[in-house]
This record gives sequence, structure tokens and C-alpha cells, in this order.
Amino acid sequence: MISLSACQLQNHQLRPTGDLGVIIERATGSVQVVNTTQQEPLAKVDKLGDLSHASVVFSRDQRYAYVFARDGGLTKVDLLQDKIDHRIIQSGNSIGGAISQNGKWIAVSNYTPGGIKIFSSDTLELAADITATPLNTSTEKKAIYSKVVGLVDAPGNRFVFSLFDTNEIWVADYINQDNNKKWEIQKFTNIGKQPYDALITPSGRYYIAGLFGESGFALLDLWHLEKGVQRILPNYNNNKQTLPVYKMPHLEGWAVAGRYAFVPAVGQHSILVIDTDSWQQVATIPVHGQPVFAVARPDGRQVWVNFAYPNNDTIQVINTENYHIIHQFKPGPAVLHMSFTPKGEQLWLSVRDNNEVQVYDPATFKKSTTFPANSPSGIFFTSRAHQIGL
Amino acid sequence: MISLSACQLQNHQLRPTGDLGVIIERATGSVQVVNTTQQEPLAKVDKLGDLSHASVVFSRDQRYAYVFARDGGLTKVDLLQDKIDHRIIQSGNSIGGAISQNGKWIAVSNYTPGGIKIFSSDTLELAADITATPLNTSTEKKAIYSKVVGLVDAPGNRFVFSLFDTNEIWVADYINQDNNKKWEIQKFTNIGKQPYDALITPSGRYYIAGLFGESGFALLDLWHLEKGVQRILPNYNNNKQTLPVYKMPHLEGWAVAGRYAFVPAVGQHSILVIDTDSWQQVATIPVHGQPVFAVARPDGRQVWVNFAYPNNDTIQVINTENYHIIHQFKPGPAVLHMSFTPKGEQLWLSVRDNNEVQVYDPATFKKSTTFPANSPSGIFFTSRAHQIGL
Repeated sequence: MISLSACQLQNHQLRPTGDLGVIIERATGSVQVVNTTQQEPLAKVDKLGDLSHASVVFSRDQRYAYVFARDGGLTKVDLLQDKIDHRIIQSGNSIGGAISQNGKWIAVSNYTPGGIKIFSSDTLELAADITATPLNTSTEKKAIYSKVVGLVDAPGNRFVFSLFDTNEIWVADYINQDNNKKWEIQKFTNIGKQPYDALITPSGRYYIAGLFGESGFALLDLWHLEKGVQRILPNYNNNKQTLPVYKMPHLEGWAVAGRYAFVPAVGQHSILVIDTDSWQQVATIPVHGQPVFAVARPDGRQVWVNFAYPNNDTIQVINTENYHIIHQFKPGPAVLHMSFTPKGEQLWLSVRDNNEVQVYDPATFKKSTTFPANSPSGIFFTSRAHQIGL
Repeated sequence: MISLSACQLQNHQLRPTGDLGVIIERATGSVQVVNTTQQEPLAKVDKLGDLSHASVVFSRDQRYAYVFARDGGLTKVDLLQDKIDHRIIQSGNSIGGAISQNGKWIAVSNYTPGGIKIFSSDTLELAADITATPLNTSTEKKAIYSKVVGLVDAPGNRFVFSLFDTNEIWVADYINQDNNKKWEIQKFTNIGKQPYDALITPSGRYYIAGLFGESGFALLDLWHLEKGVQRILPNYNNNKQTLPVYKMPHLEGWAVAGRYAFVPAVGQHSILVIDTDSWQQVATIPVHGQPVFAVARPDGRQVWVNFAYPNNDTIQVINTENYHIIHQFKPGPAVLHMSFTPKGEQLWLSVRDNNEVQVYDPATFKKSTTFPANSPSGIFFTSRAHQIGL
């Protein structure tokens, strides 16, 4: 017990996990573990592989961060000991992942080979390998499968994802009847050309895929799969001069504020406002450039927007009641990501080409602190452990 | 470092806080610290005073639980060391509390003396003592002040609360201009007879007080205080035979599912369904008894309801799409409280007179486990640290 009370004095040993976060350092393949109460980095964990376009989910106890790397690496990082707990290379090229509602499964969406793999969140042992639809257009001997994008978790321990090359949405459901356990796949085809990303609404009811090959979105009501996929906003991009797309907007960055969703338009300098009851577009908000992320403050009163090159040095803040731009500023070159703390009193953003992270008070727009990070991109707080679809 | 690595083996020393909870044991003035992943109790902390009608909020890092006792006790419990960190007796009779958006302030609402007190969440030092309106009806020498109820935190580090005896709603706002710091109070009068409890909608925009002295509710839009308090559902209880009220329904137990709120009606065997856009009642759902709590599964697809004596042995589950009762069962005598885990895969409930806590899978309604507790009442999970108004 002496050593026990000795370590009770070790602050490191008594670290709660409610105010932690992970910041991706893409250039160095490392992450910083940060604390939002002190607004400072706590530690660095490296050797995580190619972290361009990396994303993170958290275990339900908030102890572990699962880092999905572009090179197919899946790393389980221990936030209490600032070290890698377990790491595997699960594919050649992956694009994101999800954790099941009960916290038992980690799913990863892959480009090559196209499909998803499901792992035990505890051991990272492979639990299921779900291959996507093969491409008929393949000329190689080796079969090529559709790339998988827009993977999210849904209530009922389901995973939902989109097949970019074959225009499908699949729902994977874990069936455990009479100890006969298997992942059952329900497939929706012809959902629209080239779903490139997707999101699930905060309640976990609606899955929405953005279409790159045509105008509009594909909508699936997860409460009523029998209704199939419906198309929404089919014409929002028609008769408009679409600009060259430098960076695809992230749908995970859809801002759902009250009953309205604020959606980055592909190839336009605008944010679309959609009524999530009728799924009709109710407004178009002109903005500074091609939006990448639209992020709602947790109380839904503000939406913060960042932009693709050459406007990626700028942030605009939209008032969700009257759609006015109430604030605009330039944090620095290449603002890649923004995250609010769960109660919305802080906004963190990464400025890649300044190699720094900045923290703001969204009530006053004042910067409260800045600290260095190597080419920071994604910012992920542990409160995501408690949110469906994140 | 030897003792450090020694304690890294101590599981107790490496406890994350994301899947913890606190269960009130009212008969013994103690709480159980529980874990929702293992679905078991971890520890007991006692000497917390009179825990009848006790409630709990959590620090933003989820390390500390602040327990508000009926006898005016305010206790800061360390969930990493299973012990009392700090404890004060701050009044003679208190009825609940809140923590500010930034986590720096703890507010407690008091009956005697009527008002709220605000403390540093770190040290529990008194930061402000806000006395309620004195009662003109007082016949004693010593002034008596209105009881304060329905205290919640709101975005902008505000506290909102209701004055039962003087029919008021007050908003306390922390002003810090040129280092001249003070709590500024905005008062709304004649809001309706005897507000007995209140809630804030999940976004933190609307504060709603239930009225005991008349039919209806008082609604305050915290985005537009200039609009003042408006009355909603003024007639829901008119021309109805109101039954004797054995237990006031808890408005904190309002279930907001999508754009609809499911509200326990006072003195009726019914749940009211309110459209939170128009604030009109759209339906009345007949239920088994006088509802006490209506709790929405986090995905909004189910609302679970418990009841006042003599029906407090029963739970009903409502389908929020068609308002059907899809499940009814009797967990045991005196079901006092229900809580969902943040992603909704578990429902915990306390059965006081069986001295046990039961855990259910809301997808199948199957009971997954039961464990003993002394007269358990309130169940509070650490995920509340990340939610406005909880």
C-alpha cells in the first residue's frame, strides 16, 4: 500500500479522461494528447503511420483512442499511459472508422482492398471481413472492389457505409441468435452516383450520403429500412457554374442545429440550409470560399465554417437564426479542422502551416491560447465516446 | 519510477472516468460508484448527509461528483480515489444544484434560507450568495425568502432558476468587465403560480417551469430574454378531474425526442406531447398512473415512464412515433429513477424497496444484471459532464 499511496501523489496516475482530446500531427505520424481544462498538451505518442486524413474514435470508458491511419494502420492509444496499447496494419489504404454503440467493435472502411473490417475493440483481433462489391470494370487479374466511404456507427450496434464505385449503401447488423453470431448485411443499390462521404444525424436515425457524380444526397431512414433510400436536394447543383473542387467537403462536418442542417455545397461558395423534417432546402448562404467543414456550436446558435484552398486561411461564423455572417477572421495558413468542447465554451482549431493549435471563446471570439503542433489536422475530444455516429 | 511503474499495475490507479456513474443510497447517506462497462459497483462513499431527493453534477473532467443533499450538504466526491475530497454544509435545506458551462462554478438552490449560493468548483469556497425575494406574508421577525427550485446551467455560464413562492424566474449571469466581476441577476415576475420544477431543453435554449398553482408552463427563450416569459399549454389541466398528487413529476425527466417533448402531466394519468417548435400540445398519451419521470432513449425512439405511488412498481415504454405502449413490466416495489447510458444501449433503474439496481437492454427489454444497493434512488452517469443543463 505504500507504493499505492505513493502513486496517489503522482498526478499522472490520477488522470480523469473527461476533458482529454487527441490532435493529429500528420507530418510526423504522431498525436498530441491534450487537456481542455488547462488548454494544453499533455503528451505525444508517435509511430502511428501515415496520418494524412486520419480520424479517431474513443472507447466507451474514454481510456483508449483508436487512430485510423491512411496506410491501413489501426492503433489503440492508451490515454492514461500516453503510449501505444496495440497496433495492427489491417489494409493497404483506409479512410476512417467507427466504434459500435456497445463499444465492443471497431470497424474500418478500406479503399484497397475495398470493404470494411471489424475488430474486437479490446484485442484488435479480426472479427469480420466484409468485402465490397467487385468492379466489373476491372481489367486486372486480381479482383478490385469498390472503395468504401462514409462509415458510421448506428443504434443497435449497426455499422452503415457507402460504396463509392458501385453506388450502394450497406447496413451491417450483428445478429446473435441461439449463439449463432454473424454480421448480416442489408444492401441498398442505385442510391446515386459516387457517394463520397456520409454522416448520421445526432439522434442516429438518418444516414445521408453526399453524391459526387451527380447533384443531391442519398437519405436512409434507419428506423424504416423498408422505405429504402430516397434522394434529397436533387437539383441543388443544377444550372449552377460548379467550380473546380480542390477539397471535398466533409459531411461529418454537417452542422445540425435544432431542426436545420447546415451543409457545405460541393463546388460552390455556399452553405445549404436543410429542414431535417421535410428534407427540403430552405436557404442558401453565400460564404467566403468552398466550405470544407461546417461545425455547429453545441447549443446550435453558431455555425463555424472553414474553406478549401485558396481560402483556407479564413473562418466565417454564421448566426443560425438569421443566416448572417457575424464574424470572420484569419487564424493563419491552412486551417484544417475545428472542434467545440462538448458544452461549447471553447472552440479549438488547427492551423497546419503555422504548426499551431489555437483555442477560442466562441462567446467573445477572443483567442485564449495557442500552442505548437507539427502540421496539426484533426482535433478529437473524448466526449465523442458518448455520441452516436462519432 | 519504480513506484510509478508499480502503480501502473494497480488497476485502481488507472481508472478512466468515461463509463462511471454514481447511485444515491438515500437510507444510508452514501453513494455507490459504478461502472457501466462491467455493469457493477466499484466502491461506496458514505457520510454524505440526508440524501432524500439528492442530485449530482460532475466536473468537466469527470473526476469529481458534486452531491447535493437535502440537509444543505454539498460534497465533492473523488471518483478516482473513492473518497470525499471536500464537504460543506451550505444551508439548512437545499433542493438541487448545477455546474456552470465552463466548469468553474457550482450553484445550489435552497429552501431555507431561500436563494442560491455559488461556489468555486475547485475549493467549494463561497463565490456569491443570491437571496431570493422576501415573502410579504411572513409573520416572523426573521425574514423568510422564497424557496428556489428548477436550478439549471445555461450556455454563457449562466444559471437559471425559479422562485416557488413569488412566481418568478431569475437568470444569473457572470459579468467580468475590466476585472470588475459580479453576478448580474435578471428577474422575470408574474410568470405563473408556484413554479415547482423546471428544465432546460438539450440545446440550452429554452427554460421551462412547471406550474403547481395553475394549469400550464412558463417558457423563457434564453436566446431572446427581451421577449420575456410566455405561457404554454395554459389549459391542459382545465375541465379535467385532477387527482391528488402523491409525487410531483420531475421536469428534469422531460423527454425531448426530436422536435417533440414528452411531459408528465401533473395530477393526471397521462403524458403530454408538445411540439417544441410551436410549443403547442399535439397529443395526450394515457398511461398506467401518475407519471414521475419520462426519460427518452438517446436516439429518441423510446420514452420510458415510471409512476407515483401506488403505481410505482411499474414501467411503461412508449414508441415515440405512434405513441403506443410497446412494453410494460414490474421491476419491483418503488422504482424511483431511470438513466440511459449515453449511447442508449443500457437502461439502469433503481428499485428502492428491493434494495437493488437493475440494468436492461432497451432493444430487447431483457434484464442483463442486478446488484444490491441500500434504498437506491437517483442514478447519474459521468456523461452528464458534457451536457448543458445536467
